[in-house]
Amino acid sequence: MKGTGLKWFSSSLAIFVCASVWGQDTLRISDFSLMPGTRENAVGIVQKALAQCREKKVPVLIFPKGRYDFWPQYAIEKEYYESNTDVIALRRCGILIEDVKHLVIDGQGSEFVFHDRMQPFTVDHSEDIVIKNVSIDWEIPMTAQAEIMDVTDHYIDIAINVLESPYIIEEGKLTFVGEGWKSRWTGVMEFERETKLIAPQTGDAGCLGADYEDYKAEQVRYGLVRLHYAFKRKPAKGNYLVLRHSDRDHAGMFIVDSKRVSIEHLNMYNNAGLGILSQYSQDLMFKNVNSIPNPAKNRIFAGHDDGFHYSNCKGSIVVDSCRFLGLMDDPINVHGTSVRIVERKTNRTLVCKFMHHQSVGFIWARAGEKVGIIENNSMLTIGSATVESFKTITPELFEITFQQPVPTSVAEGYALENLTWTPDVHIKNSFFGSNRARGILMSTPGRVIIENNTFESSGAAILIAGDANNWYESGAVTDVVIRHNTFNDPCMTSMYQFCEGIISIYPEVPKPQVGHAFHRNIRIENNTFHPFDFPVLYAKSVDGLVFFGNTLIRSHRFYPFHTRQSTFTFENCLNVQVTGNSFVGDVLGKNIKLINTSRKAVKIDKKQGLVIE
Amino acid sequence: MKGTGLKWFSSSLAIFVCASVWGQDTLRISDFSLMPGTRENAVGIVQKALAQCREKKVPVLIFPKGRYDFWPQYAIEKEYYESNTDVIALRRCGILIEDVKHLVIDGQGSEFVFHDRMQPFTVDHSEDIVIKNVSIDWEIPMTAQAEIMDVTDHYIDIAINVLESPYIIEEGKLTFVGEGWKSRWTGVMEFERETKLIAPQTGDAGCLGADYEDYKAEQVRYGLVRLHYAFKRKPAKGNYLVLRHSDRDHAGMFIVDSKRVSIEHLNMYNNAGLGILSQYSQDLMFKNVNSIPNPAKNRIFAGHDDGFHYSNCKGSIVVDSCRFLGLMDDPINVHGTSVRIVERKTNRTLVCKFMHHQSVGFIWARAGEKVGIIENNSMLTIGSATVESFKTITPELFEITFQQPVPTSVAEGYALENLTWTPDVHIKNSFFGSNRARGILMSTPGRVIIENNTFESSGAAILIAGDANNWYESGAVTDVVIRHNTFNDPCMTSMYQFCEGIISIYPEVPKPQVGHAFHRNIRIENNTFHPFDFPVLYAKSVDGLVFFGNTLIRSHRFYPFHTRQSTFTFENCLNVQVTGNSFVGDVLGKNIKLINTSRKAVKIDKKQGLVIE
Repeated sequence: MKGTGLKWFSSSLAIFVCASVWGQDTLRISDFSLMPGTRENAVGIVQKALAQCREKKVPVLIFPKGRYDFWPQYAIEKEYYESNTDVIALRRCGILIEDVKHLVIDGQGSEFVFHDRMQPFTVDHSEDIVIKNVSIDWEIPMTAQAEIMDVTDHYIDIAINVLESPYIIEEGKLTFVGEGWKSRWTGVMEFERETKLIAPQTGDAGCLGADYEDYKAEQVRYGLVRLHYAFKRKPAKGNYLVLRHSDRDHAGMFIVDSKRVSIEHLNMYNNAGLGILSQYSQDLMFKNVNSIPNPAKNRIFAGHDDGFHYSNCKGSIVVDSCRFLGLMDDPINVHGTSVRIVERKTNRTLVCKFMHHQSVGFIWARAGEKVGIIENNSMLTIGSATVESFKTITPELFEITFQQPVPTSVAEGYALENLTWTPDVHIKNSFFGSNRARGILMSTPGRVIIENNTFESSGAAILIAGDANNWYESGAVTDVVIRHNTFNDPCMTSMYQFCEGIISIYPEVPKPQVGHAFHRNIRIENNTFHPFDFPVLYAKSVDGLVFFGNTLIRSHRFYPFHTRQSTFTFENCLNVQVTGNSFVGDVLGKNIKLINTSRKAVKIDKKQGLVIE
Repeated sequence: MKGTGLKWFSSSLAIFVCASVWGQDTLRISDFSLMPGTRENAVGIVQKALAQCREKKVPVLIFPKGRYDFWPQYAIEKEYYESNTDVIALRRCGILIEDVKHLVIDGQGSEFVFHDRMQPFTVDHSEDIVIKNVSIDWEIPMTAQAEIMDVTDHYIDIAINVLESPYIIEEGKLTFVGEGWKSRWTGVMEFERETKLIAPQTGDAGCLGADYEDYKAEQVRYGLVRLHYAFKRKPAKGNYLVLRHSDRDHAGMFIVDSKRVSIEHLNMYNNAGLGILSQYSQDLMFKNVNSIPNPAKNRIFAGHDDGFHYSNCKGSIVVDSCRFLGLMDDPINVHGTSVRIVERKTNRTLVCKFMHHQSVGFIWARAGEKVGIIENNSMLTIGSATVESFKTITPELFEITFQQPVPTSVAEGYALENLTWTPDVHIKNSFFGSNRARGILMSTPGRVIIENNTFESSGAAILIAGDANNWYESGAVTDVVIRHNTFNDPCMTSMYQFCEGIISIYPEVPKPQVGHAFHRNIRIENNTFHPFDFPVLYAKSVDGLVFFGNTLIRSHRFYPFHTRQSTFTFENCLNVQVTGNSFVGDVLGKNIKLINTSRKAVKIDKKQGLVIE
C-alpha cells in the first residue's frame, strides 16, 4: 500500500487527540440553538456552526445524540458534475464542507433525517476531514417497498407503508409522491421474507417477468394496491418487493477534490443516488460505514444505487468493517473514467468526449498528469503522455494538450485514461450481502487487496471489468490480491451484466491480440467458496492469474441454473495457475474451460482432480 | 357606504374585461414549465412568473386547474409586523405580490398545497389586485383532529389520522410533528359527530374539564392514543376533538399597505394563524371566500385562528357570500389598534406603547392623519389631533408629534386611536357556522351594514366591544345596521369572553360617565332569532340603540344554562328603542333588564308583552 494509508491514518488520529486535549476547539450544535428532536430545519444552523469552525485550529463539531432534520430551504446549491449520476443544473448541499482544513463532525450516534432531494454531505476541496457517528436517512425515501399479500394468475396485491412511501395512482400506474417530487415506479427487485436475499434467478431477469410494466394498478384501499396483469413470473406471497423509482441526482455523500477524508461509524440508510461518491480525491478511509436498510424501520432496501463509488481517485482507499445490504446497485465500484478521442487537432492536442451520459463535465486532467492512450479494439495501451493543459469545451467535450506529440497512429475512436488518478485499494473485514448486482467492481492499476470479507451478493462477488467502448470505466488491474474471503452460496443466484462467475474478470476487448492481455497479476488465495452452481471463476484477458489454496465446498441450497457448466473458464489468458485448492462435497464441474487460451498457459496440480476442457 | 365600494368594484371588473380582450397580457404558469400535479416546489417558479407579470399592462396569471405545492425553499423572507400575530423575525412569503399595480391571479379551481410554516399569499404595497378561484391547504396542517373512540372514567381513546397529523408522544404528552416543526397539543374543542356543532356548554369552559393538561398519553397503536386522566368533563364517544397546537405566526393571506384588493372564490382550508389579515389597507372585497374545513378531507377544523381579520383598514370592506366553519377563533374581526400613552414629552409630542404583544411594530400613523385621544377610565374621546410626524423607537414604542398641542390633561395611561384608518364595512349573504368563539367582532366608527347573513356561532353572533385597557382593539361604533339576518339556535350554546347575548355590545369602560356612551347609533332590524336561552341582546354604553321588527322564535334544541335570565339587558345606555318585534313560542324571559339605565331611556311598544325589570 506504499504506506500512505497508515501514515494518513495516524495523522487522522492526531486530530482526535488534539481536539480532546484542547477543548476550546470543540463546538456543539446546541450552542447554535439547535437542539435534537425539534424537527426544525438544521441546514441554516449547521452553516453557521461550520462558519465558526473555520475560526478554530482543529475544530470538532458535535451533535448531541438525537434526531436532526434537514430540508432544502437554505441549502447551498452548487454546480457539480458528479460521476455516474444524472446531470442536473445544481445540487442541493445539506451540509457543505468546502475549502476546509481539519474538521471533525461527530454525530455521537445522531440520526440525520433528510427531506426532498438533496445531498446530505458534500466535502469539496477539503483536507483532514472526519465524519463519524451518524446515520443518514429520509423521512420519505426515494425508493419504496411493498409486501406481497396475494398472488393470482391475473393480479398481485401489494401492501405499501403509506407513511413512508405515500403514492397516488396516475393513469393506472403506481406513482410515488414525496417532498418536492413525484416519481413513477420503474424497477423492481424481490427479496425473500425470511432470508432477506434477492429471490434466486430474478436479478436482471426480473422478478415479475417481461413486460410487467403493462400492469394496471387499482386502489383496494390506501396502502393496498392490486396490480392487474398476468405476470410472466410470479413472486412469492409474503416476500417483499423493492419498488425502484426516481432519479439518481444526488449522492448520499460527495467527496470531491479532497484529501484525507475519514468516514467512521456512519449508517447510510437512504439517499437519492450513489451512497458515498468519492471523485478526484485521495487518501480516504471508510471504517464501520454501513449501507444497509434502517433496522428501526422494517426496511428491506438501503440506498438508491451503489454503496461506495470511487471515480478517479488516487492515493489510498481503505474500506474496513463495512456492511452492504439491500442496495439497488453495486456495494463498491472503483474505477477511472476513460474518454474517447473525437478529433486530433495537432500532434499534441486532442479533442475528447465523455461517453457515459452520467459521467461528464469533469476537470479530467491537470498539467503534469500522466495519461495512457488505449487502442479501443485491442484495448492495448499503446503509449502515454504528460498533460500540458486542459480546457473544457462543453460538459461532454474537452481539449487536452500534451507536453509530447502523441503517436501518429492515435486517431478518433482511441481512448485516453488518466493514469495519475488511480488509487491503491484495501477492502477488508466487510460484509457484502444481498444487493442488486455485484459485490465489488474493481478497475484500477493500483495495488488492490481484498481480504477477510464475506460475500453474499446476488450476482458476482467480485467483478474486474474494463472497457473503452461502452461504459468507459477505465482501469486495467496490475496487482490484485483476493485472500481469506468467504463467498457464501447466495453469490451468483441471479444474473447481471458481466457476472460470469463468483469472481468474474470480464473486460470487453473487441479484438484481442494474441500474447497480450488487458489485466495482469491477480492472485486469489486461501478463500472459501460455497458454490451451488458451476461458475466459480471466469477470467478473460489476464496475464498472471493465480487461484491457489482456496477451499470450494458444494452448497445445495439453490438449484443450479447456469448455462456454462464449468467451474473455471479462462479466455485469452496467459500464465494461469490453479494449484493447492481443496474441493469439498460434489462441487459441480471441477473442470477448467479454456477459450483462446493455450493449455500450456495453465498450470494445475494433479491432486485437485480438475479436468481441463 | 359613500359609494367607494361600488366604484372600486367597477374598476375591478374593468381589469377582467381588459384582460380577456387583450389576450397578450395573460400568462400561464405552465409557460414557466410548472405543470399541475408534479409535486415540485412552485415557489421559485411563481416568482419568475410574477416578475414577468410586471412587464405587462394588465397581467393575468393563470394556474391551469390542478394541484400545486409550495415549500419554504426559495420563499422570500420579510420582516413584517402582523396584527394579532406572534412576532417572529421573518415571515416566509409563499407568493409575494409587492409593489404591483394591477394583477389578476386566477387559480381556475386549483388547489395550492403548502408545507411547513409559511404565508401563502402576501399583498404588500399593491393596488388593483384580484386573487380568485383557488384553494389553500396544507399537506400537514398546523391543527389536528381526533375521533373519540372510547370514553371511560379513567381514560379516553382518540384516533388520529397519522397521514395528516403525524405525532410522537414525548414526556407523556401528545406532540405533533410536521414539516419543519414540532408542536405540543395545547388546546381542545369538541365537535358533535352529526351536526358538526361545537358541543354545547364547552367553549371556553372546556370540553375536557379543568386540568385536562395533566393527562398522560399512551400509544395503543400508531394512530390510536389513550389519554389517561379522570377528565372532569367527558366528551361523547363518536364526537371529534379538534386538537389545537402550534403558534400563530403567519396569516393565510396578508394584505398590507394595499388598495383595491379583491378575493373571490377562494377556500382557506388551513393556515398558520389568522386566515386573511388585512392591515393598513383600503377598499377590499371578499366574495365567495370560505374559511371552512376541506370537504375532501373529512376535516372538522378550518383555519388556525380568525377567518378575516381587518386591523387598521379604511375605505370600504365588502364581505359577500362567504362561509365560516370550524375556525378556532372569530370568523370576522374588524378593529383598529389603540395605543397607550406612556410619556408626554412636549405639549405636541407623546411616546406611546403597543399594548398587545401580538400587535406591535406598526407604522401606526402618517403625517396628516387624525388621531383621537381617549381617557382610559371613562373611555371618552376628549379630543383629536392631526399627526405631524411618527417615529418608531422600538417595536413596542413610538414617538408621535401632532400639529396642535394636545390638551393639558392628556397624560400617561390615556389612549390614542387612529381615526383615519377606520373602514366602512358591509357584510352580507354569509354563513357563520360553528366556530370557536364569536361570529363577527366589529369595532369601527365607519358605516357598518350586516345583512342577510345566517349565524350558528357557538358564542355570540355579533360582538361590538372596545377597550383601551386590555386588548386595545379600538373603534367605538357610530353607525351600525344589523338587518335581515337569521340567528339560529346554536348561537350562545357556549360561553366565551364578552359573549353576553346573541348580539353582545360590550365595551369595557372602567368608570362610565353619566350621560355619555361609548358606542352609538346601532340598529338591529328585521332579523330572525331562534334563541333557546334567555340572552338575545346585551348592550352596554350605547347611545341610540334600535331593536325593531325582529322575530324571536323559541328553540328547544338546547338546554338553557345562562345565569342571567333576561332577554334584553341594557347597561349604561341612552335612547334605546325596542319596538315592533314578534315573539313566537315560549321565548324565555321576554324581559328587559336595566343596569344604570334610566327607564325613560327605553322606548318599547306594549303589544310585544315585554317586562322591564
